Amino acid sequence: MKILIANPNTSDAMTAMMVDEARRHCRPDTEIHGISADFGVPYIATRSEMAIAGYALLDTLARRHNGYDAVIVGAFCHAFVPAAKELMPVPVVGIAEAAMRAAQILGRRITIIGLGAPDRGANEDIIADLGMESHIASIRRLPLSGTQLTEDQAAADEMVIEQGKKAIEEDHADVLVLGGAAFAGMAERIATRVPVPAVSPVPNAIALVEVALRTGWRKPSKGASSPPAAKQTTGLSEELGGLFASAVAGNE
Amino acid sequence: MKILIANPNTSDAMTAMMVDEARRHCRPDTEIHGISADFGVPYIATRSEMAIAGYALLDTLARRHNGYDAVIVGAFCHAFVPAAKELMPVPVVGIAEAAMRAAQILGRRITIIGLGAPDRGANEDIIADLGMESHIASIRRLPLSGTQLTEDQAAADEMVIEQGKKAIEEDHADVLVLGGAAFAGMAERIATRVPVPAVSPVPNAIALVEVALRTGWRKPSKGASSPPAAKQTTGLSEELGGLFASAVAGNE
Amino acid sequence: MKILIANPNTSDAMTAMMVDEARRHCRPDTEIHGISADFGVPYIATRSEMAIAGYALLDTLARRHNGYDAVIVGAFCHAFVPAAKELMPVPVVGIAEAAMRAAQILGRRITIIGLGAPDRGANEDIIADLGMESHIASIRRLPLSGTQLTEDQAAADEMVIEQGKKAIEEDHADVLVLGGAAFAGMAERIATRVPVPAVSPVPNAIALVEVALRTGWRKPSKGASSPPAAKQTTGLSEELGGLFASAVAGNE
Amino acid sequence: MKILIANPNTSDAMTAMMVDEARRHCRPDTEIHGISADFGVPYIATRSEMAIAGYALLDTLARRHNGYDAVIVGAFCHAFVPAAKELMPVPVVGIAEAAMRAAQILGRRITIIGLGAPDRGANEDIIADLGMESHIASIRRLPLSGTQLTEDQAAADEMVIEQGKKAIEEDHADVLVLGGAAFAGMAERIATRVPVPAVSPVPNAIALVEVALRTGWRKPSKGASSPPAAKQTTGLSEELGGLFASAVAGNE
Amino acid sequence: MKILIANPNTSDAMTAMMVDEARRHCRPDTEIHGISADFGVPYIATRSEMAIAGYALLDTLARRHNGYDAVIVGAFCHAFVPAAKELMPVPVVGIAEAAMRAAQILGRRITIIGLGAPDRGANEDIIADLGMESHIASIRRLPLSGTQLTEDQAAADEMVIEQGKKAIEEDHADVLVLGGAAFAGMAERIATRVPVPAVSPVPNAIALVEVALRTGWRKPSKGASSPPAAKQTTGLSEELGGLFASAVAGNE
Amino acid sequence: MKILIANPNTSDAMTAMMVDEARRHCRPDTEIHGISADFGVPYIATRSEMAIAGYALLDTLARRHNGYDAVIVGAFCHAFVPAAKELMPVPVVGIAEAAMRAAQILGRRITIIGLGAPDRGANEDIIADLGMESHIASIRRLPLSGTQLTEDQAAADEMVIEQGKKAIEEDHADVLVLGGAAFAGMAERIATRVPVPAVSPVPNAIALVEVALRTGWRKPSKGASSPPAAKQTTGLSEELGGLFASAVAGNE
Repeated sequence: MKILIANPNTSDAMTAMMVDEARRHCRPDTEIHGISADFGVPYIATRSEMAIAGYALLDTLARRHNGYDAVIVGAFCHAFVPAAKELMPVPVVGIAEAAMRAAQILGRRITIIGLGAPDRGANEDIIADLGMESHIASIRRLPLSGTQLTEDQAAADEMVIEQGKKAIEEDHADVLVLGGAAFAGMAERIATRVPVPAVSPVPNAIALVEVALRTGWRKPSKGASSPPAAKQTTGLSEELGGLFASAVAGNE
Repeated sequence: MKILIANPNTSDAMTAMMVDEARRHCRPDTEIHGISADFGVPYIATRSEMAIAGYALLDTLARRHNGYDAVIVGAFCHAFVPAAKELMPVPVVGIAEAAMRAAQILGRRITIIGLGAPDRGANEDIIADLGMESHIASIRRLPLSGTQLTEDQAAADEMVIEQGKKAIEEDHADVLVLGGAAFAGMAERIATRVPVPAVSPVPNAIALVEVALRTGWRKPSKGASSPPAAKQTTGLSEELGGLFASAVAGNE
Repeated sequence: MKILIANPNTSDAMTAMMVDEARRHCRPDTEIHGISADFGVPYIATRSEMAIAGYALLDTLARRHNGYDAVIVGAFCHAFVPAAKELMPVPVVGIAEAAMRAAQILGRRITIIGLGAPDRGANEDIIADLGMESHIASIRRLPLSGTQLTEDQAAADEMVIEQGKKAIEEDHADVLVLGGAAFAGMAERIATRVPVPAVSPVPNAIALVEVALRTGWRKPSKGASSPPAAKQTTGLSEELGGLFASAVAGNE
Repeated sequence: MKILIANPNTSDAMTAMMVDEARRHCRPDTEIHGISADFGVPYIATRSEMAIAGYALLDTLARRHNGYDAVIVGAFCHAFVPAAKELMPVPVVGIAEAAMRAAQILGRRITIIGLGAPDRGANEDIIADLGMESHIASIRRLPLSGTQLTEDQAAADEMVIEQGKKAIEEDHADVLVLGGAAFAGMAERIATRVPVPAVSPVPNAIALVEVALRTGWRKPSKGASSPPAAKQTTGLSEELGGLFASAVAGNE
Repeated sequence: MKILIANPNTSDAMTAMMVDEARRHCRPDTEIHGISADFGVPYIATRSEMAIAGYALLDTLARRHNGYDAVIVGAFCHAFVPAAKELMPVPVVGIAEAAMRAAQILGRRITIIGLGAPDRGANEDIIADLGMESHIASIRRLPLSGTQLTEDQAAADEMVIEQGKKAIEEDHADVLVLGGAAFAGMAERIATRVPVPAVSPVPNAIALVEVALRTGWRKPSKGASSPPAAKQTTGLSEELGGLFASAVAGNE
Repeated sequence: MKILIANPNTSDAMTAMMVDEARRHCRPDTEIHGISADFGVPYIATRSEMAIAGYALLDTLARRHNGYDAVIVGAFCHAFVPAAKELMPVPVVGIAEAAMRAAQILGRRITIIGLGAPDRGANEDIIADLGMESHIASIRRLPLSGTQLTEDQAAADEMVIEQGKKAIEEDHADVLVLGGAAFAGMAERIATRVPVPAVSPVPNAIALVEVALRTGWRKPSKGASSPPAAKQTTGLSEELGGLFASAVAGNE
């Protein structure tokens, strides 16, 4: 089983971190590779950046998805995931949806732990896109960049433990989602120090893809994730235009 | 007052039709211009096509919005409108939201009349994005392309009247939204022949922009439509990258 | 195009203010007149006052709607608007619904700025009647009467700017609705001093009526706003009873 | 305990029927009287008729509520009930809310059996006003007037049994609400012939008022049903105007 | 009319208190008896305790329901009530649903006054099970056990008055539900000292059962409360197993 | 890693089938065991049967959970899962929630394929308990018992393929959930013959438990799944009573 982790951002460091975490948690016979977007933004914090990253994801995947059994979209963001599910000839899952759905099983009220400055709706959009408004306790953000987080893990762990405890006491959370690839490995490290479960996006996405492929998951030819009707496009890369030109509509 | 109608698709014919309808309905002192996307898809029917059109819209607007007081996004689709509202230095409105909000005033239960084959969620996404699920009677589609619709208006009018009457009888609609620029001029033509109001997207968007600008609408510096924090990007056009580089975060 | 602004309250001063604001914003060829209720309450703050004002509106309109192309209900209240839409032989719109729907386009989270003492549900009822609960950031009220507001506009502007800024910071609002006719002209005055848009009810109602009539809006003969079945009544004014006696049911 | 059943319509026959049914089901020490509206419509089927009946209810109650411990609003309609709860100096309950809340206890999915032609939203408005959309199986209407129903009870019983069985089979109802005073006595008569419970509005309203008064129910001086602030009115009857003039605001 | 109050807990003191309150409020011709669960927990505070109490309720009722016209489940908890409604050959109602539905009539925003330590979702589950989320102002708890409450009623009254006033001021409640049998008699005692109504569960359940039985309520043979299909069970008491063995499916 | 699959029903055949399927899909180092309830019902179809099975589950688990790292509740039903999560000293997950959450990732609109006669709300209760109403396309049932299904797999496969295709065409489903342990192995077999994904409950529960344990999942000491306060019980088995007696409340 070969799985591609596609980072819609341009940060190779974050891509490497996700691949590493995935390899630590995948089954022995699963092969993991990662790619970053060829252009666009180094991380996603706003809706215009989502628009850039969505196009960059499709364009990059168009050129590099061959040979993989499934694609994991490696950003804690959901807006562009349905587009990739539709256009790609292989099954696609996002790390945000994998983490948020697992959290709904491990708890009743979810707090998302996010990074950096208030992110203008990126996490709120995930919640709305997944229809989870009534399952959320809060969104809490650390005053750190992804780079700062990975440079001093011990300090970051303390901050997440502190915010997690506040989320439990003040927001009545009973599960935490560590909302970003930069939190790789933290869930295991803090497990004995927070009184509720913490969910890691990448390992959950891997586990979901593995079991889904093992039980027959294939690119759908009907429904919301089936390919669009063939269509001529203008000014796209040869590979991206080619996906539109050759698509066979499942729904029509 | 100068308003730019930006078509996120590549069809110049549809852009011309929207400009023409806008000019017939704008105030005497309003100036209207139109542009089409420089690349992408000729019309939007699916989520991957929305992703392409959203990027094309931002890239095209980055190069051509100067000198306008406001931008109207000229596609019956909403997914990419919040990104344009955020990134552009001038106010932005979409024709879909203008039509749907007017319809909520003119009736209680809305039927959207759409074009062509079932569109895999484009209209459903408008409804979800605008939070209007409980206000919708139905979506009904004509078996026509935009081109066919404009080539034989008399036939198209009959089809909309027929579908509209069915929507009223079977779906209990009490207002119709003509869901696309290709319906330009139809609302007036059929008004005496359908027993409920029909809403035209482009004139409603013009009226909304005119009154909003007259009563002080400016680019917000706070909230969901304020600009993102400045950010270095890779591989974008000079003008699009420039918008990200120069942005000053209102929210942070 | 002749439009009647019908104030369901007895305050002629407020009616004059709405007419004046409407004339400043209507198209050159639109003619605006105003009437106040012949009996009832000077302003609406509670549900029993809404019941009085609703009857007064129907009775007053029954005697004075002739010759107009459309009616605008001039109170920031929605409860009685559907009754007027149903009974009147011409199209009817309320200033509250016009303002609130425009606000949904200009922002994601709305704060209503209201007047005087907590109004026991009048604004809450608008929100519920329009199905907008999930789009509201807050309701904030000024400790002023409508008369006080109009007597010292400069002071009132400062209070709205202060409350607006608090709504943005504390309630995460990104659009303000100035909830009442007494705010006439304020949106333009404060536009450069609040970082999000402010919406004026009367100009938005005028713009909506103008574009709707231009694109074919007529009294519906089907649906929620079609006339009721003819019915004999007892003890109503001749004109109001006459509307019920002569009505032809569209729905039955 | 003295209870007044106030019919907001002008039909004395219907008032008498409600009083009769109430007396058959009240406790031995409860005294029941009834009044009809002094003016307005003979029955309520539309929103403009609700506006007329709401005012007629307030005006009639203002003159005739003295000496009663509580008022029951005797129409299967809810729009004007909150206004009466607010303005009257004694507790008020509507027969529609009493029936619908009892039905939520006796079943999970409710079918309302209504009368006459499709009633343009009266029943739909009850459901929306009470926030019960997700508890409703269907609304089914008999092709009868209230008079016809009471003239041939045996035939009416058969029609309700037939519609009730269809509601169970086709709409998955598990409780029926007999939506109107004209159904007096029917629930008992058909109980052994329909396989789910049927709810009578008037007896349920009586039972609710009796237990509420017995356990301390008084006119609230705080909250949504507390009296409005004192206010001068114009052109109202002496008694109705007097209620507004003398009111002491609980909320302000 | 003979009514059985079945306490799913093992506390005979609480059962006696409920029977006493019911007898003070029932009609003269109503006979009331009470039983406690034969095994299980002394009071219910958590979901695992609900699971124990639900089984104990079914088992106890299976042996002791004969001869009654209806059963009232005497715990302020709803989770197991639908199971009893389904399995018992007579109609069943819970005191929690009776109180909460009455409260929806007496006010718009409900505060539940509960007992003891935060109860881990028992009250929250009632709200969710009854679909009442949007009707709730708050849940407020007294730092008392049921025993403490009944030992010093005067002190308990003061605490409820204080919490009730806070609920009105801070949470905008306009009706209180006294959430438990231990509050018997308090609603009448405090009625003149709190400015909004207070609802007693047991008297409301009695009133509902009396009027429902009087108007024809019988065990349904269709719908959610009809008996399950006959089924062989293992290891249940003879009487409980017998109910399953003899049941005749109404739905199938 | 040792995982216990606890079947709350008494059918050893179904337990064996679940263990077998789990062993085919677990990681090489995972050890799986299964137990059936010691008493109760052979399968769950109604709410009273859920009440029996919930108690049987707690009682059986109390005696047999020692030595396991986590428990999987092996019934396509959710009502009693939160009670087990609360009372058991190890983490607990249900196969229904695991399947339904995975389905929300693999599609937008879910059809549940169920067994036997209409099950009176068991599947509807899962949907309500998980808050998934707006994500469901339909519930479709096969006219088979679990035994019949497993005896002729080829025939059962054809029936599921036929119902699945109808769900896609008529209900617009884009993912199927095979709602019961008796469907073990079917998802893989039919994958190439239905155009949308099919989800198997048991393998998804295993995958979720494996990744959650690997990333730190422990019994929570706070929140909805933390243990209740210690409490004396009456008449329970020594082990079940012991769990209540020794519990240490995390929330209090």
